[in-house]
Amino acid sequence: MRNSPIGVFDSGVGGLTVVKQLTGEMPNEDIVYFGDTARVPYGTKSPSTIKKFSIENVLFLMKHNVKLIIIACNTSSAIGLPFLSKYFSVPMIGVIKPGAKAAVRSTRNGRIGVIGTTATISSKAYENEIRAFNPKIRVYSKDCPLFVPLVEEGWAGDGIVDIAARKYLFPLKEKKIDTIILGCTHYPLLKSAIQKMMGKAVRLVDSAEETAKEAKNLLEECGLKYSGGKRRARVKFCVSDSPDKFLMVAKRFLGKDVKTAEQVKDV
Amino acid sequence: MRNSPIGVFDSGVGGLTVVKQLTGEMPNEDIVYFGDTARVPYGTKSPSTIKKFSIENVLFLMKHNVKLIIIACNTSSAIGLPFLSKYFSVPMIGVIKPGAKAAVRSTRNGRIGVIGTTATISSKAYENEIRAFNPKIRVYSKDCPLFVPLVEEGWAGDGIVDIAARKYLFPLKEKKIDTIILGCTHYPLLKSAIQKMMGKAVRLVDSAEETAKEAKNLLEECGLKYSGGKRRARVKFCVSDSPDKFLMVAKRFLGKDVKTAEQVKDV
Repeated sequence: MRNSPIGVFDSGVGGLTVVKQLTGEMPNEDIVYFGDTARVPYGTKSPSTIKKFSIENVLFLMKHNVKLIIIACNTSSAIGLPFLSKYFSVPMIGVIKPGAKAAVRSTRNGRIGVIGTTATISSKAYENEIRAFNPKIRVYSKDCPLFVPLVEEGWAGDGIVDIAARKYLFPLKEKKIDTIILGCTHYPLLKSAIQKMMGKAVRLVDSAEETAKEAKNLLEECGLKYSGGKRRARVKFCVSDSPDKFLMVAKRFLGKDVKTAEQVKDV
Repeated sequence: MRNSPIGVFDSGVGGLTVVKQLTGEMPNEDIVYFGDTARVPYGTKSPSTIKKFSIENVLFLMKHNVKLIIIACNTSSAIGLPFLSKYFSVPMIGVIKPGAKAAVRSTRNGRIGVIGTTATISSKAYENEIRAFNPKIRVYSKDCPLFVPLVEEGWAGDGIVDIAARKYLFPLKEKKIDTIILGCTHYPLLKSAIQKMMGKAVRLVDSAEETAKEAKNLLEECGLKYSGGKRRARVKFCVSDSPDKFLMVAKRFLGKDVKTAEQVKDV
């Protein structure tokens, strides 16, 4: 089991930001990534549908005998993790708790903003995690449904993003937060527009780095760290839609090209 | 069979514009509508996935013993109709041919623009249909991926739509088209921004009305028109995600409230 792969799933391509951090943190670990590109997005859908899709994604990864599952999707983490980790015996972590932890460590004035998909924000998952760390912290949340399509359209650097950012983030700016959680794997690609709108003093927290660290700790605690000799670990990419578009945009999230991805007919 | 319902499917809620026209044109006909809200959108996905989803939607409607299937989704019509109508024995129509026909009738200068999802535009379905009617007509196409999320966000009347419209439609404006096909069921909600960008002289063609007329003709030709006495026909709404959001936004497309919709667990 120690030499089994880590499983990572996301609603699409955004979870590759987590894979990037994982390969940096643990270069010897094999990874199986599943992106549910046929049914993306999750963040506009209902909790029951997000749960159903999340269960199917876990079952798919378990076919690959994974030793740990990382839910790289904020929406799935927010809605799915609480019951998935009860249902399944494989260790599982999401991106919410690591992101919340990083934000709690970052804030000086005790005022944190959270942005994400409608499903993530409605779930109050970040709020609950932050308050579990420190109940005195005030949390202000806002869903930003157009951010994902804007990134997917390749308009991340365009002036239209500034307009959307102003519409969504103005209420948070007024709350004088000093830290904002980018609660969706697509949002780090909009960092400059978000920073411009919020002002230089506000710190942007991206869960991916913290999640990779938590994954490393968990593997060590459970005695599941790769124990073989030095090797070039493999990352296997699987998707539910045709791989073409995934391969085309993967670099933006992973930082390097993905050469092949396997289309999974039935998740 | 004459008194069986008409089946209509769409990737989500947009197909209700076709239902609206159908109930106006044929108030005695029962309708079963299926919106695949759990897997929406289709227009950003690959042809193989769109085909798979379309087959599943047809199979679902056939359980309701429908006498005719109308594919209200432009993407499914463009990608799916050619082979669906070969596979299945039930009569079937899409929105592409009716939309193309209306545009050919409308143009005076023989220059037609087509806008739609990436999948619809890539398929060249409108181009092929228009050329089948009149090979001399010049067709200019542009995909507008952000239009659907903008409508779904409820920003149809916002200035941000004008910016997106300018980015997408400027190349078509330069081609001096006099007619533009709104090749996606969401786009009629952006009529004013599109008209403003294209200029008053350009005619906007929406397939829904023409599709309802074609459906009526087809039922008459096939001897499948409702033949019972006067009645209040029923429209049954089915969706794959939770009905909440569907019920909330349905009015924008149908022109009146939808009171209940049934969630279908397995399409």
